[in-house]
Amino acid sequence: MADIETSIFPREQLQEFSSRVFQSFDVPRQDAELAAEVLAISDLRGIDTHGIARLFSYFGLLKDSRINPRPNISIVRESPSTATVDGDNGLGLVVGPRANDIAMDKADAVGSGWVAVRNSNHYGIAGYYVLEALKREQIGMAMTNTTRIAAPLWGAERMLGTNPIAMAFPGKDEPPIVIDMATTAVAYGKIEMALRKDEPIPDGWAIDNEGRPTTDPKAMADGGAMLPLGSQRERGGHKGYCLSAMIDLLCGPLSGANWGPFTPAFTLGHSNPDRWVGKGLGHFFGAMKIEAFIDPDELKRSVDLWIQTFRAAQPAPGTDGPLIPGDPEREAEEIRRTAGIPLIMPVVEDLRQIASETGIPFE
Amino acid sequence: MADIETSIFPREQLQEFSSRVFQSFDVPRQDAELAAEVLAISDLRGIDTHGIARLFSYFGLLKDSRINPRPNISIVRESPSTATVDGDNGLGLVVGPRANDIAMDKADAVGSGWVAVRNSNHYGIAGYYVLEALKREQIGMAMTNTTRIAAPLWGAERMLGTNPIAMAFPGKDEPPIVIDMATTAVAYGKIEMALRKDEPIPDGWAIDNEGRPTTDPKAMADGGAMLPLGSQRERGGHKGYCLSAMIDLLCGPLSGANWGPFTPAFTLGHSNPDRWVGKGLGHFFGAMKIEAFIDPDELKRSVDLWIQTFRAAQPAPGTDGPLIPGDPEREAEEIRRTAGIPLIMPVVEDLRQIASETGIPFE
Repeated sequence: MADIETSIFPREQLQEFSSRVFQSFDVPRQDAELAAEVLAISDLRGIDTHGIARLFSYFGLLKDSRINPRPNISIVRESPSTATVDGDNGLGLVVGPRANDIAMDKADAVGSGWVAVRNSNHYGIAGYYVLEALKREQIGMAMTNTTRIAAPLWGAERMLGTNPIAMAFPGKDEPPIVIDMATTAVAYGKIEMALRKDEPIPDGWAIDNEGRPTTDPKAMADGGAMLPLGSQRERGGHKGYCLSAMIDLLCGPLSGANWGPFTPAFTLGHSNPDRWVGKGLGHFFGAMKIEAFIDPDELKRSVDLWIQTFRAAQPAPGTDGPLIPGDPEREAEEIRRTAGIPLIMPVVEDLRQIASETGIPFE
Repeated sequence: MADIETSIFPREQLQEFSSRVFQSFDVPRQDAELAAEVLAISDLRGIDTHGIARLFSYFGLLKDSRINPRPNISIVRESPSTATVDGDNGLGLVVGPRANDIAMDKADAVGSGWVAVRNSNHYGIAGYYVLEALKREQIGMAMTNTTRIAAPLWGAERMLGTNPIAMAFPGKDEPPIVIDMATTAVAYGKIEMALRKDEPIPDGWAIDNEGRPTTDPKAMADGGAMLPLGSQRERGGHKGYCLSAMIDLLCGPLSGANWGPFTPAFTLGHSNPDRWVGKGLGHFFGAMKIEAFIDPDELKRSVDLWIQTFRAAQPAPGTDGPLIPGDPEREAEEIRRTAGIPLIMPVVEDLRQIASETGIPFE
């Protein structure tokens, strides 16, 4: 099987293109630049599925007037350390950063800030938000619910999203530990890749449309569902389901957003649920001022030692030993900052189509 | 294979015995009763490994003067919404509830409270703490790091505990959703059970002392390690490791407690690490006042609908459909509140030995 063909683009070019596309739908310039930055950080960090590869979906939703380009993002309820934010159906790439700012401002003021968000849309990579917190000497937490694609353990239908969680801890001399993970057994991108290559997928990733375990990526795509982290009962699949439920409950019922099977579709190709139980998609952000708990220098020295200790672990046979969370993304970023962003041809084709429809030059 | 033989005891009898044992080591009566209650709630909820079955370990540590019976539990740093608590090497069953109270008091005052704890010991089931938060119309979060027993993905040695996380959400007419889970693929109790029955364990639970996958429970017990949720790289084992790391970092470096491979041993049978990198074991508690985010009645109605929606999911073949997190524990509690607590004979023997050494009557 040959590798997938890619073309390389400078990050700046992609970011500029995204920003201009958003602006062409009347998104204010500052918001468009912010949204484009969130996408670019994803591409830089090697999370290809959540970067400019998603511009075509945002483009479709904006074109179809399903996203509000000029939202009035507002706090609908608050306390000194918490807030509930209504995103007014704006781009998640704009609503997310604004809500995260509110959490970080509250952390500066009273030690921590916790913000539940409703009426938003897909917000990019969860990791973006916790990297922002690091810049302010804070420990951030970010979660979002997403369009349904995974089954709860022992269910035979799509009822939960990939529901990611992220958190980051700063080192002193070492790079930060950055956790950013979906709560499904595997990223949907890996199933897409198997589809593209016409290859089977491992047992434990998916079920078919009757709820039976399958190794056929088409059976998953064709009305089946992904499995939660842990995959089966015997291996803790109920725990992955619990985590996904926890994130769904914080993002949905706590904020007043939709949840579970009622989350909005992310692309025009998917149909929305039969009814709404809340407003839009939901997020949940936390920020904790490190100094409110411990001397930041002491924390950073402990994190350094944590990293050094885990790097020095005896490796399992056939491996180089444990990775530190965030290592692969940081390594991708080091390469891509200078070498540029590789895009697979279907993504390039999507971007060309956007260019053709909007008149914004891509290449 | 025959079932394991058990004897049934009334909850009150076990709780009274635990309390008197703690008091015999000069633990103040109020603290002893609290600690005994935490153990009893675990037994009631069917989490047999964390209830009175652990009294023998606490007993051993108290007898060996490795736990301070009369700790001066103090706040060493705080902000309006956060605190760092030093447990003065007290029983985790006492330090945990006190620190959780501080988190809940802060939530009442400023919307949320987040408390990192150092210099504590094992604190019982994480679920206990979030059930307390429900009583105050709050959403609680509880985490602890624990004695090392699991390997990080691609590591060949014990470097992390089972590091559980718990969170609970109240329903209106439905019972609450209670998430309480270790971040290993399986509970250690299941490996112990396989050892006792001399049966193999499924692939994905453990590695041997050289880091190779094993299905022999003896190979795990004999210097091997448990695997994180997800088990292998292909099934997301790095995510279980990330979750465990997240919990370890919040409980250890953030509070100033020990972390990772440096956590203290839980029983006299295990040796402590070569050195300390902090003080005792660590916990992390969060509490959020529901009213600070949304009308509590609205949240509860959403949680009811969430529960009803997931209960109504199409079941996977051969199953009764998805469970709601907390269902098995609540069902156990309903039975055990009237029928009593079944204890396996090795636990009964341990309790008889405690009775014989302390002179406190057990049966």
